[in-house]
Amino acid sequence: MSASEELVGNALVGQSGGPTAVINSSVAGVVAEALNHSEIEEVYGCLNGVLGILNEELIDLASESQQAIRGLRSTPGAALGTCRYKLKTQADFDRVLDVFKAHNIRYFFYAGGNDSQDTADRISKLAQAQGYALRVIGIPKTIDNDLPVTDHCPGYGSVIKYISTTVREIACDNEAMGQHDLVQIVEVMGRNAGWIAAGAALAKRKDHPHDAPHLILLPEVAFSTEKFVADVQRVLKREKYCLIVVGEGLVDADGNYVSAAEATDAFGHAQLGGAAEFLQGLVEQNLPGVKARTVKLGMAQRAAVHAGSKTDSDEAFLAGQAAVKAAIRGETDKMVTLLRGDQDHYTVETGLAPLSEIANGVKKLPREWINEDGISMNHQFLRYATPLIQGETPVHYENGLPAFARLDKVRVEKILPAHTA
Amino acid sequence: MSASEELVGNALVGQSGGPTAVINSSVAGVVAEALNHSEIEEVYGCLNGVLGILNEELIDLASESQQAIRGLRSTPGAALGTCRYKLKTQADFDRVLDVFKAHNIRYFFYAGGNDSQDTADRISKLAQAQGYALRVIGIPKTIDNDLPVTDHCPGYGSVIKYISTTVREIACDNEAMGQHDLVQIVEVMGRNAGWIAAGAALAKRKDHPHDAPHLILLPEVAFSTEKFVADVQRVLKREKYCLIVVGEGLVDADGNYVSAAEATDAFGHAQLGGAAEFLQGLVEQNLPGVKARTVKLGMAQRAAVHAGSKTDSDEAFLAGQAAVKAAIRGETDKMVTLLRGDQDHYTVETGLAPLSEIANGVKKLPREWINEDGISMNHQFLRYATPLIQGETPVHYENGLPAFARLDKVRVEKILPAHTA
Repeated sequence: MSASEELVGNALVGQSGGPTAVINSSVAGVVAEALNHSEIEEVYGCLNGVLGILNEELIDLASESQQAIRGLRSTPGAALGTCRYKLKTQADFDRVLDVFKAHNIRYFFYAGGNDSQDTADRISKLAQAQGYALRVIGIPKTIDNDLPVTDHCPGYGSVIKYISTTVREIACDNEAMGQHDLVQIVEVMGRNAGWIAAGAALAKRKDHPHDAPHLILLPEVAFSTEKFVADVQRVLKREKYCLIVVGEGLVDADGNYVSAAEATDAFGHAQLGGAAEFLQGLVEQNLPGVKARTVKLGMAQRAAVHAGSKTDSDEAFLAGQAAVKAAIRGETDKMVTLLRGDQDHYTVETGLAPLSEIANGVKKLPREWINEDGISMNHQFLRYATPLIQGETPVHYENGLPAFARLDKVRVEKILPAHTA
Repeated sequence: MSASEELVGNALVGQSGGPTAVINSSVAGVVAEALNHSEIEEVYGCLNGVLGILNEELIDLASESQQAIRGLRSTPGAALGTCRYKLKTQADFDRVLDVFKAHNIRYFFYAGGNDSQDTADRISKLAQAQGYALRVIGIPKTIDNDLPVTDHCPGYGSVIKYISTTVREIACDNEAMGQHDLVQIVEVMGRNAGWIAAGAALAKRKDHPHDAPHLILLPEVAFSTEKFVADVQRVLKREKYCLIVVGEGLVDADGNYVSAAEATDAFGHAQLGGAAEFLQGLVEQNLPGVKARTVKLGMAQRAAVHAGSKTDSDEAFLAGQAAVKAAIRGETDKMVTLLRGDQDHYTVETGLAPLSEIANGVKKLPREWINEDGISMNHQFLRYATPLIQGETPVHYENGLPAFARLDKVRVEKILPAHTA
């Protein structure tokens, strides 16, 4: 812990990019921890990420009920709202600092992926250049699990728990339908990397290599129609059904998305089918008499708190807490990372990495974790991923359905004139 | 209770048609109850429905562990295997009776939908015609909820609980993405009736009519592009996102499936898109700049025990028990029905209805339960459906994922020569 000057002022937390099942848990961690430190006078949230800063749309998080803040630990979406807006101009950045100064924001916590950490980094650098004392700590968030340095990203454990659960359930169903050959195709997210699709490997029981999923198709492995058809035939012969998990970003040997080949129809309309429909077409064209059915989990997968990982939710909360603790210690310009212990049993603690390193890096799915067959994951991946799905996020049910937290969103009074972009 | 001759012999239970989240619970109910009655000597299961009878593929259910039978109460799929095979010829029916006679089957329990109850009925009639003492009781099963007489069908409560949960979660996600207009389309099963899509109405909180789903598109309401586009625009203006639940069997004013209009592409290949892709195309053509995203739950929805209704699972078990009790009482040629009490609080008891009445009837979604706007359900539907999703099916987790029961399937020795179709 570095001895640093005490910095007294207000804290601001924001959420950015696509929501996950646990990004709200990180906000809960920030709020819970912030209230422990007298240096932090007010705890604000910005609505819709940096957009809320530009528009001076801040809410008072300390006035929310404890029940609501606790409820965030099992509420999907982004309770503060999120955005994909990228700060563009110097005027944008200056406006951010103007708002920070107007509201005496001295601590800024931003939960998001690469782009969001880049934004946080640039805000931090600008404050330093202007001599405005500000501590900026990023909180990792992405189902894509592609942030560098950190062992894994909050959001990833829950998405692969949900997908593995779904695959295991569909497999029970398909296995029971023994009469006709059936190909079941489950499309999952992951435009650039196979982290999410790979996670479906957890659905296999230990020592049951023939369990579903039978084929995992990853963007990291160039797609070949011939191999695909042969793989499907081999599995059908053995199991009578073939359950395939495909990442949406499947590419051919030239690096083109497989579903992009027919990207427009005869009228020039965008072709709407994705990777699953592409494979369904291949099955029906190449394997007459074989039925192919698709499931597309879409945004359901990143919101599925009801099948979420408690480990993931707890780590997201921990990351929020750690962000506050680090800032109070005097750290800035860093993102919280998750560090896995080297014991046999899984342990995790938090670390810090420079925002600039996060913003410019991408963690790829290691090729050596993919089996030689190109369609399954080996024990190194399983050892990595299994701890991340342990435990079930406790969800509060009301009248038969999950009850999610909603914030009162008491607005902080605006001080500045309206922003003109 | 009618005084009837005691009939001593073996019992056989089978599963038929598409699996549900609770059809195994009905088998568990049959087995648990059968062991209470000395009239029933052995409890067998037939593999893959009537196909297993034709092929004399019977298993000894009494030899399964109690753990496995209990586990069936929260295991998706059809643990005995299922089929869509329809007994066709007199030779088929004669073979069924030959197998029953060879194994002294005196009690036959068949879980399934209309077609399966028809099959059971015909087997029963044949036995009567031949003077072979046999008691046949059907057990209702279908996510489609379209069997007549019974108040509702085991399987329905779980599918609508899962869909409502998913809709509520996606809504949290979409609501957070306030920057661009977003249309989210969730396609659910239901080729001929809107029971399943209607169930998504449960996702709305009480007294929050503007909650998602904003549009429920049912096969019962002829689709109009103009109204659809206007409805979407109205919701987008208010909410910035529009969550649509569409039943796969959506039809136009002429009664044709909306997705069938473009049933073949320029090469004569079957057009693979379903109702969701059809609507996505309409949004993108008619509302420039509005993003449309799809989720297709497919077979995941009928297997989702992890989000299953305890009420549904318990009632499926109860129906299995009731089938055995009825047969022991001397009933035959009937299907177990679920009867709702007329108190304010939900109660259910079982009844019986003639198989022939079930086989030839269909229960339609009442038009008067659909609001005038054609896209939402009224309080009568909510009063009907809400009790069916109460309670969460207790799922046993191992290593982070639901652990499902698997039967040992100890085969009953074959006695007859092989079946020749």
